[in-house]
Amino acid sequence: MVLERQRKSLTMPDLSGASAKNLPGQGNATREAILRKAVEISSMEGLESLSIGQLAAALRMSKSGLFAHFGSKEELQCATVDKARDMFIDEVIRPALSATGLKRLRMLCDRWLSYVERRVFPGGCFFCAASLEFDDRPGVVRDRIVQVEKEWLSLLEKTAREARAAGQLEKAVDSHQLTFEINAIAMGANWSFRLLHDNTAFSKAKNAILSRIDQAARPGKRKSKGARR
Amino acid sequence: MVLERQRKSLTMPDLSGASAKNLPGQGNATREAILRKAVEISSMEGLESLSIGQLAAALRMSKSGLFAHFGSKEELQCATVDKARDMFIDEVIRPALSATGLKRLRMLCDRWLSYVERRVFPGGCFFCAASLEFDDRPGVVRDRIVQVEKEWLSLLEKTAREARAAGQLEKAVDSHQLTFEINAIAMGANWSFRLLHDNTAFSKAKNAILSRIDQAARPGKRKSKGARR
Repeated sequence: MVLERQRKSLTMPDLSGASAKNLPGQGNATREAILRKAVEISSMEGLESLSIGQLAAALRMSKSGLFAHFGSKEELQCATVDKARDMFIDEVIRPALSATGLKRLRMLCDRWLSYVERRVFPGGCFFCAASLEFDDRPGVVRDRIVQVEKEWLSLLEKTAREARAAGQLEKAVDSHQLTFEINAIAMGANWSFRLLHDNTAFSKAKNAILSRIDQAARPGKRKSKGARR
Repeated sequence: MVLERQRKSLTMPDLSGASAKNLPGQGNATREAILRKAVEISSMEGLESLSIGQLAAALRMSKSGLFAHFGSKEELQCATVDKARDMFIDEVIRPALSATGLKRLRMLCDRWLSYVERRVFPGGCFFCAASLEFDDRPGVVRDRIVQVEKEWLSLLEKTAREARAAGQLEKAVDSHQLTFEINAIAMGANWSFRLLHDNTAFSKAKNAILSRIDQAARPGKRKSKGARR
């Protein structure tokens, strides 16, 4: 698969192909620089507050120069979501592709829960923020965010199914429920972080998620021998 | 303890006293009717969109009549949060006070996760919506929401500690971590419901939370004998 920027071609599970960055005719250094700045700004101030004028000022470009790359605010927002998706893939998913099954599942969760600490996006988790910002704003930007989130959940669920098929998770494990719980704990941690300013939320979520995976694993495949309490 | 409406007196753990509704001089039928309508509107349209003008129109009252009860929009919003808190106490907490320890913990979570289905608030979970709406809006309304959420988390944690002290939960159980996970799963379910329109999110969360409690319980105190997968 090729990671394309076009709206309809977003699929995540097969990530072994080339990155969109290397596709011929798909972009250039200017577009890259614009989108990096757009991700940076919107991770701190929100995707809705992103404007072509503000971005042009931050990059010392003309508005018309920016319009040549993105014809509208919505196009810019969608391209920003795609850029953040590329960065998420590079930081969270690609490193885990060297492993398979249960090990891949653990790596995906581990890298996901620590990427906020690694400051991949200066404002925290880009997709947590964007999903909360757009959950009640129907339109193409919301659709794009939903698509990326569903890709991510599908990847987690597919990985859990593969781990079960390989005999690493218990046969009784419900991959959909397990994936739901992993994601819910992480999103709930974001709630605690934002509302209660709980700086330990993501490390508690990481403990919870890795323990939950351990509990679903067959006895010989667990990291800790004791049951989680 | 008395459930008072005053900002500084909000404490939840001891709920055996009289309800604020019965306190002398604390309110009247008109104020009650106004606040019920305010909770209804804001659970559907958001607490920020609540205005004295809109509420007056919905209740066929004059604006000045409403101003006699609430001097400002912020006061109205805070009173609405307090009214929703009273309703939450009546629906979720008070029925669980007949039980103690582990049974109370299960009842609190069970009633919490099903109160959205019972349509206590027409727009879903008032506090989920309000907390997401105000997490980035500093001020007295946000402070009030944070206070109510902290009360709720304290009550859950205190109940878990009591269950452990009564020998119903394993000694190794970390009540703070357990409470964090229970809350995170519920808030994450709300994320799935809002963004992905996942109508099974709250029932999956209920399964996850009750299983998580079961896992923390001592063997003789578990509902299901098998380990959760």
